[in-house]
Amino acid sequence: MNWDEIIAVIEAAVAPHRGEGHVADYIPALAAVDPMKFGFAVALGNGDTHCLGDADERFSIQSISKVFTLSMALRKVGDALWDRVGREPSGSAFNSIVQLEHEHGIPRNPLINAGAIVVTDHLVDQVGSGPMITELLRRLRVLSGDDTIDVDQVVAASESRAGARNRAMAHFMQSFGNLRNPVEDTLAAYFSHCAIAMTCRQLARAALFLAFDGRDPISGEQMVTSQACRRINAVMISCGHYDNSGDFTYRIGLPGKSGVGGGVLVVAPRYGAVAVWSPGLNKAGTSMVGGIALESLVKITGWSVFV
Amino acid sequence: MNWDEIIAVIEAAVAPHRGEGHVADYIPALAAVDPMKFGFAVALGNGDTHCLGDADERFSIQSISKVFTLSMALRKVGDALWDRVGREPSGSAFNSIVQLEHEHGIPRNPLINAGAIVVTDHLVDQVGSGPMITELLRRLRVLSGDDTIDVDQVVAASESRAGARNRAMAHFMQSFGNLRNPVEDTLAAYFSHCAIAMTCRQLARAALFLAFDGRDPISGEQMVTSQACRRINAVMISCGHYDNSGDFTYRIGLPGKSGVGGGVLVVAPRYGAVAVWSPGLNKAGTSMVGGIALESLVKITGWSVFV
Amino acid sequence: MNWDEIIAVIEAAVAPHRGEGHVADYIPALAAVDPMKFGFAVALGNGDTHCLGDADERFSIQSISKVFTLSMALRKVGDALWDRVGREPSGSAFNSIVQLEHEHGIPRNPLINAGAIVVTDHLVDQVGSGPMITELLRRLRVLSGDDTIDVDQVVAASESRAGARNRAMAHFMQSFGNLRNPVEDTLAAYFSHCAIAMTCRQLARAALFLAFDGRDPISGEQMVTSQACRRINAVMISCGHYDNSGDFTYRIGLPGKSGVGGGVLVVAPRYGAVAVWSPGLNKAGTSMVGGIALESLVKITGWSVFV
Amino acid sequence: MNWDEIIAVIEAAVAPHRGEGHVADYIPALAAVDPMKFGFAVALGNGDTHCLGDADERFSIQSISKVFTLSMALRKVGDALWDRVGREPSGSAFNSIVQLEHEHGIPRNPLINAGAIVVTDHLVDQVGSGPMITELLRRLRVLSGDDTIDVDQVVAASESRAGARNRAMAHFMQSFGNLRNPVEDTLAAYFSHCAIAMTCRQLARAALFLAFDGRDPISGEQMVTSQACRRINAVMISCGHYDNSGDFTYRIGLPGKSGVGGGVLVVAPRYGAVAVWSPGLNKAGTSMVGGIALESLVKITGWSVFV
Repeated sequence: MNWDEIIAVIEAAVAPHRGEGHVADYIPALAAVDPMKFGFAVALGNGDTHCLGDADERFSIQSISKVFTLSMALRKVGDALWDRVGREPSGSAFNSIVQLEHEHGIPRNPLINAGAIVVTDHLVDQVGSGPMITELLRRLRVLSGDDTIDVDQVVAASESRAGARNRAMAHFMQSFGNLRNPVEDTLAAYFSHCAIAMTCRQLARAALFLAFDGRDPISGEQMVTSQACRRINAVMISCGHYDNSGDFTYRIGLPGKSGVGGGVLVVAPRYGAVAVWSPGLNKAGTSMVGGIALESLVKITGWSVFV
Repeated sequence: MNWDEIIAVIEAAVAPHRGEGHVADYIPALAAVDPMKFGFAVALGNGDTHCLGDADERFSIQSISKVFTLSMALRKVGDALWDRVGREPSGSAFNSIVQLEHEHGIPRNPLINAGAIVVTDHLVDQVGSGPMITELLRRLRVLSGDDTIDVDQVVAASESRAGARNRAMAHFMQSFGNLRNPVEDTLAAYFSHCAIAMTCRQLARAALFLAFDGRDPISGEQMVTSQACRRINAVMISCGHYDNSGDFTYRIGLPGKSGVGGGVLVVAPRYGAVAVWSPGLNKAGTSMVGGIALESLVKITGWSVFV
Repeated sequence: MNWDEIIAVIEAAVAPHRGEGHVADYIPALAAVDPMKFGFAVALGNGDTHCLGDADERFSIQSISKVFTLSMALRKVGDALWDRVGREPSGSAFNSIVQLEHEHGIPRNPLINAGAIVVTDHLVDQVGSGPMITELLRRLRVLSGDDTIDVDQVVAASESRAGARNRAMAHFMQSFGNLRNPVEDTLAAYFSHCAIAMTCRQLARAALFLAFDGRDPISGEQMVTSQACRRINAVMISCGHYDNSGDFTYRIGLPGKSGVGGGVLVVAPRYGAVAVWSPGLNKAGTSMVGGIALESLVKITGWSVFV
Repeated sequence: MNWDEIIAVIEAAVAPHRGEGHVADYIPALAAVDPMKFGFAVALGNGDTHCLGDADERFSIQSISKVFTLSMALRKVGDALWDRVGREPSGSAFNSIVQLEHEHGIPRNPLINAGAIVVTDHLVDQVGSGPMITELLRRLRVLSGDDTIDVDQVVAASESRAGARNRAMAHFMQSFGNLRNPVEDTLAAYFSHCAIAMTCRQLARAALFLAFDGRDPISGEQMVTSQACRRINAVMISCGHYDNSGDFTYRIGLPGKSGVGGGVLVVAPRYGAVAVWSPGLNKAGTSMVGGIALESLVKITGWSVFV
């Protein structure tokens, strides 16, 4: 099957499900997104990108940004990161605070909210809040070839206003000495990177290095070490979807990361990167229609890390 | 590097660590095992097997048997299995009962004790307790070419005597209606398959089909469907090492399953299967020296599902 | 107001609520009880007993028996009891197993199921299973002046058949070394004393010593030491109603113990003991109409330990 | 025994234990207190007060203030308070956040930190932050006859600086909609009332109304209704000492409330109120030597709500 045919099959597979799931409504900017939106993009190692639907419309990448901040942290901090955050699946919701109490303020992994806040705190500590966001944007712009990629300040401000739960977790970790910067400084950076807006095409393209052992196959640049790349994928496959991570790995068989904006990023080692976007979420916060599209894709292509 | 060289490097890597970890001591038969034992075997798709140390000495495979009972259950029961057991990492110890209460007697996954008991209960229900063990042994004997593979009845009896915790979990699940057979019937089968004794060479050989999309590359027989094979690997990579699963995936990057007897089984898709045995365990019940051997192996070979 | 008037007020107070609540249905013998049943008895220090409704009909005292086994254990074992069971409210349901895991098999208090099983195990250990029940019955018969008080063997057998959850807890505690006798021996005694059948009149009379510092005011016999009596009342006021204990103390202001058969025993120090029975339960397993009757009683009489 | 003799016995009982326990060290002002300090005062219904040791030295009453804010809230808000906070013992530490997650931001009771913050939030809402503290101080000054009773601003400021855990809980409850005022406003009032400094003599005198059904026996003023008084005592006996409440009730048999400054307030209905102060704490945050003094007192006097 060629890519046009593959795309057509995926389109047909998702068609009867468009609009399914529950759109995140804790902030107006997300609640207002049309639930019928659906975008899909596959970036391949040869530079080709195959798209479908609203693949060129920007959406709020939200927690998908945690993959890029983790990458940056492994570059800047290395293994010292793991003194302050684990790499085990939490078995709990994205914003659960229970384990933090039992485990003395050390979050289970960098892809749940508490863990991502620690990663951000580490980066704010290393390079400062502003420069951290600047560097993150610079990399995303270069990788995806669009200089206008930016933080959606309206979303960031909304996130902060609705940020009581994240604020609680940050203060909680601070009470255990696991936050180095003032809570509001770290959270400002956290809310900013979660509010970055990108298209599926850009996101797939930007993550391509994760499918090629850390090296961007287009530019040839080694973005992270081979070891770091494998580890990022390992954390994604174990922890990328909160308390739905095991099910995602069971169904899709590839490392991925979901965002509450309805985006899902998936890495297919040796083949490419996939980004899908559809706002309706399942209970664990992963895009419903996005999941269906990915199931269709792996069924046709046979992509799986287990083959 | 050829395999003789690889084996030599692994031997050198583990040498200074021999004897590390804590040997399981809840039953005499396990407590009596010499902590200096170390066996290692890689079975490749071309039929070659490369071994090291005590690779031809039998040990109690314990929870590694759960991979084979899961395979059998997916053959016999199919997706109906998932009505009674989840496929999410538990984030808890192998014998934790807490989640069972919160989640109404449905274990998180088939590789923790409670989940494996449900899988066994399903098989006892389908084929009966005796025939289930007979069939499991038959398959293991055929795959590894040794007709004498058997349950160590002394170990099985010890497990039963020391089985209060598993008994508690079985009665607990029964109270939620998630056990169909009398507790002692299901547990007898469970204790039996955990007490199977095999060598590293046999274990690696028997699991080879998991590295080749469900098809044993030597006999050509399709042991489980391609889809089932991927799913078994997915459950292993998410849940194979209890509350240490994320760390194992991070360090080794391959699906695996540990046993409290000190064995670890690892699957390297497209390449082969690996079995390692050394009795000293880390806190999560995974062989300490086994982990070091596997880290060494993946470093040299570059094996990883993420590449 | 004289007692005839008090009884009339209580009768009027409960009338519109008769039949409310959910009758326990986990065993047929309890499920079959008429939800309209209502009995009430106050035994006073001067020997008078004032009754209402079905006060002379026997019902299954269930967990109210835990007060009498605790009394017996404090006589036989003294403070050594507290090595194996705590005296803190659990904040959890009567049959929760979660805290047992976190707290190494030591139940929170003697009035939740796990704790009462430990108390029974202690008594089985001291005097044997049969003699323990014999002695318990002897005391209840003497105190209430009815030689026919006995275990309802049909209920006891039903409890055992439906006893998976209690069996799970017993095996679980055994796995921590906190059960000395075979699980089925201890549980047989436990199911027996929970299946004792008594009337409200008998129950109030039998508990009178708890209102008079351990001394039965009719016979003059010191049943437990003054210190033990205060402590039993303390455990009742803290833990007598599972995760509803605080609310009961807030509303009624007296030490009490509920049973899933719909009975509630209440102690009014210096005044007397009260037994009420009505099968419909609230979420925490305390009789709904029983609670209304007790609220009415304490409002009229002003009885409260806090005055 | 007359009161001079009783006081002498208590003095002798605590002498060998002076200095035991662990002085709170999370803020400098508390850490600096001499661990040998010991004050004791009994205020009786006839107006007599019997004192011992440092009974006229001010200390930080900390969580004992929660009894007075609860009293104020029941006067101002009545039963509506219970929509936002429960009255069950938590079975957890004073600052645990786990139950808040499981129970949707509703704290278990008004005497743990989270519950007291909600009570304070309620009062800030009703009367404003400043007036609330003013009214609380006015009452304490009138009751104890000392116009100089005040908030220790140094302690209040320290509490705020070290307040990450309380801040986490406040934001967490806000995320569930169970905080009406800005977090920092409510916490400012909370930290203020916890930082009130009083002597044992004053504290015992100020709480005397709780021993006489809500009516101050000296002035004759009804401070809270009879019903409210019983309820406050009920909450104290169930929840006054966090996860040590059951043990306190078992040992002392009277409603009480501990503070991390080493103070303990106890109510003996019909007799009087007792305040004891000694900085060394047990694991649950209750004064070690204070507990010994109270055990001695109730042994000599026979005071108990259960007699």
